[in-house]
Amino acid sequence: MEKLKEYVSVKDEDHFYHQGAVELLIFNFLLILTILTIWLFKNHRFRFLHETGGAMLYGLVMGLIIRYVTKSPDVESGTVYECEKLKSGPSTLLINITNQVYEYQYKREISHHNVNGHQGNTMLQKMTFDPSIFFNILLPPIIFHAGYSLKKRHFFRNLGSILTYAFLGTAISCIVIGLIMYGFVKAMVHIGQLKQWEFHFTDCLFFGSLMSATDPVTVLAIFHELNVDTDLYTLLFGESVLNDAVAIVLTHSISIYSPKENPNAFDAAAFFQSVGNFLGIFAGSFAMGSSYAVVTALISFMHLTKFTKLCEFPMLETGLFFLLSWSAFLSAEAAGLTGIVAVLFCGVTQAHYTYNNLSADSKMRTKQLFEFMNFLAENVIFCYMGLALFTFQNHIFNPLFIFGALVAVFVARASNIYPLSFLLNLGRKQKIPRTFQHMMMFSGLRGAIAFALAIRDTDSQPKQMMFSTALLVVFFTVWVCGGGTTAMLTWLQIRSVLVGVDPDEDLKARAVSQSAPNLDKNTTKAESAWLFRIWYGFDHKYLKPLLTHAGPPLTSTLPEWCNPVARILTSPRAYGDQLKDGDTDYIINNDELTENYESSAHIAVPAQDSTASPQATGKEDIQEGDLGLGGYKLQLQPTAGQPQKNSWA
Amino acid sequence: MEKLKEYVSVKDEDHFYHQGAVELLIFNFLLILTILTIWLFKNHRFRFLHETGGAMLYGLVMGLIIRYVTKSPDVESGTVYECEKLKSGPSTLLINITNQVYEYQYKREISHHNVNGHQGNTMLQKMTFDPSIFFNILLPPIIFHAGYSLKKRHFFRNLGSILTYAFLGTAISCIVIGLIMYGFVKAMVHIGQLKQWEFHFTDCLFFGSLMSATDPVTVLAIFHELNVDTDLYTLLFGESVLNDAVAIVLTHSISIYSPKENPNAFDAAAFFQSVGNFLGIFAGSFAMGSSYAVVTALISFMHLTKFTKLCEFPMLETGLFFLLSWSAFLSAEAAGLTGIVAVLFCGVTQAHYTYNNLSADSKMRTKQLFEFMNFLAENVIFCYMGLALFTFQNHIFNPLFIFGALVAVFVARASNIYPLSFLLNLGRKQKIPRTFQHMMMFSGLRGAIAFALAIRDTDSQPKQMMFSTALLVVFFTVWVCGGGTTAMLTWLQIRSVLVGVDPDEDLKARAVSQSAPNLDKNTTKAESAWLFRIWYGFDHKYLKPLLTHAGPPLTSTLPEWCNPVARILTSPRAYGDQLKDGDTDYIINNDELTENYESSAHIAVPAQDSTASPQATGKEDIQEGDLGLGGYKLQLQPTAGQPQKNSWA
Repeated sequence: MEKLKEYVSVKDEDHFYHQGAVELLIFNFLLILTILTIWLFKNHRFRFLHETGGAMLYGLVMGLIIRYVTKSPDVESGTVYECEKLKSGPSTLLINITNQVYEYQYKREISHHNVNGHQGNTMLQKMTFDPSIFFNILLPPIIFHAGYSLKKRHFFRNLGSILTYAFLGTAISCIVIGLIMYGFVKAMVHIGQLKQWEFHFTDCLFFGSLMSATDPVTVLAIFHELNVDTDLYTLLFGESVLNDAVAIVLTHSISIYSPKENPNAFDAAAFFQSVGNFLGIFAGSFAMGSSYAVVTALISFMHLTKFTKLCEFPMLETGLFFLLSWSAFLSAEAAGLTGIVAVLFCGVTQAHYTYNNLSADSKMRTKQLFEFMNFLAENVIFCYMGLALFTFQNHIFNPLFIFGALVAVFVARASNIYPLSFLLNLGRKQKIPRTFQHMMMFSGLRGAIAFALAIRDTDSQPKQMMFSTALLVVFFTVWVCGGGTTAMLTWLQIRSVLVGVDPDEDLKARAVSQSAPNLDKNTTKAESAWLFRIWYGFDHKYLKPLLTHAGPPLTSTLPEWCNPVARILTSPRAYGDQLKDGDTDYIINNDELTENYESSAHIAVPAQDSTASPQATGKEDIQEGDLGLGGYKLQLQPTAGQPQKNSWA
Repeated sequence: MEKLKEYVSVKDEDHFYHQGAVELLIFNFLLILTILTIWLFKNHRFRFLHETGGAMLYGLVMGLIIRYVTKSPDVESGTVYECEKLKSGPSTLLINITNQVYEYQYKREISHHNVNGHQGNTMLQKMTFDPSIFFNILLPPIIFHAGYSLKKRHFFRNLGSILTYAFLGTAISCIVIGLIMYGFVKAMVHIGQLKQWEFHFTDCLFFGSLMSATDPVTVLAIFHELNVDTDLYTLLFGESVLNDAVAIVLTHSISIYSPKENPNAFDAAAFFQSVGNFLGIFAGSFAMGSSYAVVTALISFMHLTKFTKLCEFPMLETGLFFLLSWSAFLSAEAAGLTGIVAVLFCGVTQAHYTYNNLSADSKMRTKQLFEFMNFLAENVIFCYMGLALFTFQNHIFNPLFIFGALVAVFVARASNIYPLSFLLNLGRKQKIPRTFQHMMMFSGLRGAIAFALAIRDTDSQPKQMMFSTALLVVFFTVWVCGGGTTAMLTWLQIRSVLVGVDPDEDLKARAVSQSAPNLDKNTTKAESAWLFRIWYGFDHKYLKPLLTHAGPPLTSTLPEWCNPVARILTSPRAYGDQLKDGDTDYIINNDELTENYESSAHIAVPAQDSTASPQATGKEDIQEGDLGLGGYKLQLQPTAGQPQKNSWA
C-alpha cells in the first residue's frame, strides 16, 4: 500500500512537471537536425535528398533507437480487465483501486486481435500521436498555405486541365488502384494469406482513394529552385492541391458506403448516396471556406468606408485573419463537412480578395506566418512518418500486398495522366507536351495526406495492412521519385536552370518582360478562356469592388438605377486606384488576358526549344514577389526576396 | 447489445471527424470577439477596459452559457467502479465491456470528495484544459517574448532595483501573504468553517508564493500607449518579468518542503533543503536557457567565418531560432528544472547576442512571430480564466478566505514596494519618487502566472479553495486596477501623454536627443554602474566578439599571446563594423554610459516636472524601433512601426 502510493505520487509529479516535454524535445531535435541538414544541402546544391526525405530519414533512425534502446515493455499494459458492471464505454471512467480513485479517459475501441500489439513500452505509446492532431493541427496550415500562395494567373489559365486531372484523374486513380488491389487480394485469398471475408471490394476502393492523394512537395520545391517551366509547375501544383481535397472527400464517401446486403455486390442506392454525399460535402466545404474569407474581406474592407481603420493595427489584422481562416476549418469540421477542403478554398479566396485590403505590414506578416507554419508542419509530418515505421505497434507487412500497391500506384498514375492529357490536348491550343506528361507521371509522389488518411483508422486488420503499405509507398516515392527529379528533368530536357536556361539571361529576360509585357501580339483563344472570362467579368465588375478596394467603382459597373447603393458600397479609393492594383495589373481586360496568354503559350509550346518562354517564368516570379512583399518590393528585394525562393513549395 | 454498438460507433465517428473542433471554435470565436472589441476601443481611445479584461469578460459570458444552456449531465460519469484485480493505476487500461475491448488512458488521481464534482456534462469537461497546456504551450511564448523584447539599456540601468524588487520583494510578499492567510485560516477554524488539519502553514505559504507573481500586462500596455515615463515602465516591467520566474521556482520549492514530523513546526533541515532547491533550480534553469541561446548565437554566427551562410535562408534561420528557444524550455522541463525561467533567460540572451547575427529579414520575422504568439497566447489565457469561473467543476468559494486574500495581496504589495523603495533610495542617486511608488503599488495585478500555478494542483480541498480565490483576485485586480490605470496616472501626475507631455513636442525632443545625445555632461556615478560595468566590460570585450559580429575584434581585447586563436574566432566583419552595431551604438564605453545615464537622470528625477526626461523616452523608442525593424528602419516606419506601438507590452 505504501509502495503503491509512492508510485502514484511519482507519476503525478511527472504528470505536472514535464508531461510531454521529452517527446516534444525529440521532435524538436529531429527538426533542428533536419534544418541543419537542409542548410548543408543548400550550400552544396545537393538535390538528391530533399528536406522532406531527410526529415523522414532522421525520423526513421530515431524510431529505431526508441524501439530498441528504451526500457522494456510495461508489464501491466497488455492485460485486459473485466468490468461486469459497465454496460457501455463512458468518456470518463472513475476506478477505485485499493482505496484510491483514478480517472481514466476514453481513448478508443480496440479489436481483440490488437490487444497483444499493445505490449509496447510507454515511450513508444507516448510517441504515437492521436491521428486527430494531423487533421486539426498539422494539415490545415499546409493546405491553407497552398491555397494562399496559389499563383492565380497561371492557375486560372490552366483551370480546365487542373480540374480534369483533379476530379476525373483522382476518380480514375481510385478505381484503378481499387481494381488492381482487389486482384491481389483475390490472389492472397487463393494462396491462403487472407480470409475472404476480411477484405471487401469497398476496402480496396478505400485504399485506392487514400492512395490517390498526391503530394509532390519535394518535386515542386526542386522545380522552384531550378526555375522549371511555369506551366508544368502550375499543372502539377494545382492538380496536387485540388486532388488532396478530392481524395479526402472521396475517402470519406467510400467509408460511409455501406450496401445493405452482400458487401461485395453493387448496391445502386448506396452508391448514389455516396456520390451525393461526395458532392454535398465538397460543395458545402467550398461554401464554408469561401464565406469565411468573404467575411474577413468585408471586415478588412470596412476600414475605408467606416470611421475605423483596422489596417492601422497590423497585429489585430493578422490575428483576425489567422483566427477567421482557422475558424473556416473548425466550422466545417464541426458541421460534419471537410475542414481541409474548406481551408483550401478559404486560402484561395483570402488571397484573391482579403489580401488586397490588408496593410502592407499585414501582407508580409500573414505570408511569413503561414509560410513558417507550413514549413514546420510539413517537416513534423515527414519526421513522424519516419518514426511511425518503428514506433507504430500494429504494423502488418504483407509482401504481396505491398508489391501490389506499388504496381497499382504506378499503373493508376499512368492511366490518369496519359489518357487525360490526350483528351485535354484535343481541346487545348497550348498542348501539354509528352515530356511534361512523363514528368507529371514521375511526380506522382504520395505524402502527408495519404499518410494522414491511412492512420485515421487502424482498428481492423485490413486497415492496419493498408496503413503499413501506404507508409512504405510514401517512403518509396519520396526517396526514389523525389530523389530522381533532377535526373529526370535533365533526361527529359525540360526547360530549367539545368537545361537551356542561363540564370543571368533569365534575369535579363524578366526585366524585358516586365518593361514590355505585351510586345508579341496574338489573338488566338485561350484554353479555358470562356470559362474564365465569365467568372472574371463577374468577379472584376461586382465582387472585387464590393469586397476590396481594387477594381472599377461599382457606380460604373452596376446599372444606373443602383447608383445610390453602389455609391455607399464602393471604396473611395476605388475611383483612383483601380489601375495600380496588383491583380488588375496583370489582367486588365479579357482580350489582353488572352493575348498575354497566347504570346507566352506560343513560345512555350515547343518545349524542347531550350530558350523558350522566359517571359512566362519571369513574370510569374515577379507576380509572386509582389504577393509576398506588398509595397516593399523594391526596398526589400535583396534579402526578403529569398524566402520565396527557398521554401515556397 | 446492438444499441451499444451503435452508440460506440457514433462516438468513434465523432472522435475521428471533429474531435475538439467545437471547443476550439468557441475559443476562436471568443478571440475574434476580443479582437473586434480592441479595435473598437482603440478607435475610441477607451482605456477603462483593456483587451485582457475584455477577453476575460467574454470568457465569463461564454462560461455562463456553456454551464446553463448545454445539455444535462452525463449520468455515467459520476459512478466509481471497483476493479479488484487491479493493483495499481497503469498508464493505459484495457477494459472488456460486453465483448468489446476499450482503451482508457490514465488522466489523474481524484480525491474521494471530488468524485461528485465530476458530474458535470461532457461539454464542461471538454472545455477544461489540461493544466500542462498552460505550462507547455501558452506560457512559454509569453515569457520568451518578455525576455526577447526587454529594453536592455533601461533594464541594466535599473538592474539593482529590479533584482531587489524581484527577489527580496517576492519573498516578502510570499511571507506576508502566508502569515495573513494563516491568521484567516485560524479564524476560519475557530468559527468552524475549516478543520485544523486541512490547512497547514506551508499551504498558506504556497498560496503566498503563487499570489506573488504579478502580471501588469494591462498596465504596461496602457503605459506604452500613453508614453509613460520610461524608468517607471522599466522598473515595473523588469520586476514583473523576473518576479514570475521567482514565484514559479518558489512555489515549487515550497511544495516540496515536507518537514518530517509536525507539519506546522519549523524543520530547519527541510527548510534549507527547500532554499537549496530554490537556488539550484533557479541557477540550473538560468544556465540551461542561456546555453541554448549561446548555441543559437554560435550557429547563426558561423555563417561569417565558415563557408556556409545561414542568413541567406531566413526561413531556416527563423525555424532554428524558434526550435532552439523552445528546446531550452523543453530541456529544462525534462531535466526537472523550470522551463519558464529557462525560456526567459534564453529570450534575454537571444536578444543580446543572436539578434545581432540574424539577417534583417529574420530579425523582423522572429520579432513578429513571437509578438503574434504572445498576443494570441495572452488572450487565450485571459479568455480561459473567464471561462474557468463557470466551467471548472470543483470550485470552493469561502467568503472569509477570499476577503483575507484580497487584504493580504494589498498589504503584501505595500510591504514589498514601500520599504524596499526606501532602502533602494538610500543607495540610488536617481531616487524613486513617491508617485512612482504609489503607481507600482497600484500596478500589482495578478494574471496568467498566478492562475497557471493555482490550476496546476486542484486535487485537495485547500488547493481548490486557493484556486477559486486566486481566480477571483485575478478578476478583481485586472478589472479594478487595470481599469483605473489612466485615472491613477492623472491623479498621481505622472509624466505621460495625459500629463504634461505633448505628443508633438515629445517627437521634437526625440529628434533632438537623437542628433545630439550627449549635450548635457555630468559625471556622477550611476546606481548599479559598478555591477554593470564589470559585466559590461567582460561582455563587450570577450563575449560579444566571440558570439556576434559586433564589438571590437578579439585580437585587440585578448592578450597578445592569444592572437592566433583570437584571429580564428573573430568575425572578419568585426574589424570594420564595430561602431555600426546597434548595441554599441548606445553603450560605447563605460564613461559615456554613466554620463548618458546621469544626464537623463538629472532631468528625470524631479518627476513632477512635467517636461522632464524627453531624452530617455525618445531614445528608448528609437532603440526599440531599431530592434523591431532591423535594417528597414527608414523605409518601413510609416506602417511597420505601428505594431510595436500597439502590442509591445
